[in-house]
Amino acid sequence: MKQNLIFTNDVEGVLQRLIADGGHNMTVWVADVNTSRFVPNNAPVITLPNGDESKSLETVCRVWNEMERMGVTRHSLIINLGGGMVTDLGGFAAATFKRGVRFINVPTTLLGAVDAAVGGKTGFNYNGLKNEIGAFALASDVVISTRYFDTLPIEEMKSGFAEVIKHAMLSDHGEFLRLLNHNFNAPIVHDDLLERLRHSVQVKVDIVARDPNEQGERKALNLGHTVGHAFESLAMRRDTPVPHGYAVAWGLVTEAVLSHLLLKFPSEDVHSLGNFVRDNYRDFPFTCDDYDELLDLMRHDKKSRDGEITCTLLNTIGNYHVDQAITHGDMTAALDILRDHLGL
Amino acid sequence: MKQNLIFTNDVEGVLQRLIADGGHNMTVWVADVNTSRFVPNNAPVITLPNGDESKSLETVCRVWNEMERMGVTRHSLIINLGGGMVTDLGGFAAATFKRGVRFINVPTTLLGAVDAAVGGKTGFNYNGLKNEIGAFALASDVVISTRYFDTLPIEEMKSGFAEVIKHAMLSDHGEFLRLLNHNFNAPIVHDDLLERLRHSVQVKVDIVARDPNEQGERKALNLGHTVGHAFESLAMRRDTPVPHGYAVAWGLVTEAVLSHLLLKFPSEDVHSLGNFVRDNYRDFPFTCDDYDELLDLMRHDKKSRDGEITCTLLNTIGNYHVDQAITHGDMTAALDILRDHLGL
Repeated sequence: MKQNLIFTNDVEGVLQRLIADGGHNMTVWVADVNTSRFVPNNAPVITLPNGDESKSLETVCRVWNEMERMGVTRHSLIINLGGGMVTDLGGFAAATFKRGVRFINVPTTLLGAVDAAVGGKTGFNYNGLKNEIGAFALASDVVISTRYFDTLPIEEMKSGFAEVIKHAMLSDHGEFLRLLNHNFNAPIVHDDLLERLRHSVQVKVDIVARDPNEQGERKALNLGHTVGHAFESLAMRRDTPVPHGYAVAWGLVTEAVLSHLLLKFPSEDVHSLGNFVRDNYRDFPFTCDDYDELLDLMRHDKKSRDGEITCTLLNTIGNYHVDQAITHGDMTAALDILRDHLGL
Repeated sequence: MKQNLIFTNDVEGVLQRLIADGGHNMTVWVADVNTSRFVPNNAPVITLPNGDESKSLETVCRVWNEMERMGVTRHSLIINLGGGMVTDLGGFAAATFKRGVRFINVPTTLLGAVDAAVGGKTGFNYNGLKNEIGAFALASDVVISTRYFDTLPIEEMKSGFAEVIKHAMLSDHGEFLRLLNHNFNAPIVHDDLLERLRHSVQVKVDIVARDPNEQGERKALNLGHTVGHAFESLAMRRDTPVPHGYAVAWGLVTEAVLSHLLLKFPSEDVHSLGNFVRDNYRDFPFTCDDYDELLDLMRHDKKSRDGEITCTLLNTIGNYHVDQAITHGDMTAALDILRDHLGL
């Protein structure tokens, strides 16, 4: 269970080498309507529609059918080039076609680079449930680059950056403070950002290596997500969807507050994080009238058990504790403090 | 990557213990129209239609939908009770539902017990191709019993027995000779047959453990199958389908002949095997006019590479060599000798 991670801004050169060394009978690219322009001319490509609503069984079948038509065998190579939708769905299709074709992920979004493309979670939405069907299957290689980010909307950069902060919170106080100095309005400094990615992805990889199938420690990566998913779902129900990372950012602050209340996580770190999130991630308008619905969503999270609300909490940056049961009183108190902090 | 194998004729007792020890929030059974009568009263069961043509994406979706409706979570347990169709398809559905629910296989056919239920291959037919989509996913436990075999048609017993012979050929000359004394017309001696199963399954498990994803050594298990699959496909095209194991039996003789021609596999073992197959597996009527089509099918086998015909061959019982390239001349000679042996 090992993934080869390559951090580079010479993506073409690296891929050419991987393709040449692999001895595959053919290479097929999977991309979406935005990223297919990065596929080399004349290379066979399967182009997916955009958007989470296309992350469906129907699209998976289209990919299987195209693979069949193109003559993909177990000795072929698939290159998934795109955001989380492409690497999740393309990875699942490759992992299940003839019981598994080798695939390489080339994430083109920050969120994809630090989250979806690495760690072996593949899948698609089913019956209205996100990532309801899927498999744990590792890309043989993940080629991580910042070269696609110059044209990425700032909202998408911010969304991915929340996961970068999460990884720092699970590992390294210095990196955490460094990230909170980030300025989204300045042009990207590629070498520096690639270094931040290297740090961030390594945190995920180390945790996944110790628990590939999410039996225990991997739940650390759920930091910010119990509360974040509830915000994301509530926004969806109100037909005012928010980017995943924004919801995670609010979730990180809330769970940092809980960590302070329950595990004495330092208040100065809560404040630094809270200020950064307030300044960079717009408000999510919610009131105490929404608490019941939010708590209900948290109880029904895919990772919850027996209807209990559980979070990953920290006692300091880098010291995490998974599966912490949260009472309704504590969660309500934390949401109050979040609203205070965001000025809601 | 470990499967717990349990050989027992007290299936109920063993399953009760596994269920009680698992701490699961619910247990759901997957069976087919024949085997659902073995499911405990009042237990939730998903019943599949019979037959290879139901081993489809549509049936997989039905299983996913039923799991959803019943409230299956990652903390639930699935018990697949049936032949290869149930364990293959039920295993795939369980392995992909919410990215993986624990499942136990309880094979009810001899072929299932020594082949499909063990070793982690799951999947379904797609676009007219057998097991075209699937995943490598291990049942946590496989409960192997002979208690379901008393009512199994003799044709199905023979079909499974061909794989038992194959495993002996890969491992143990004494066991090989013991098996060739088997009398299909005598009543089943359960304790003895369970012992033969224990021996047979262990051969597969040992090989799979050394090569779970079929990169190399696992191809040993393909003994008899390059030729066998060609017979099976030819019979299918002629609308006179033959049981899988019958085709494998003829394939084993053919590949034993090839082993003799190319690797000096002892002729007395070829003869003992050939006699047993001639006496127990009915003829497959083919002539030299069918050779071109058979060779063409072998070149397009899922496991072939670059259109070459490759077989697993033996120099003695227990000493196998995978990926042996076979010339058309050698294959033709072996088919001639097979026809001689079967009196065709």
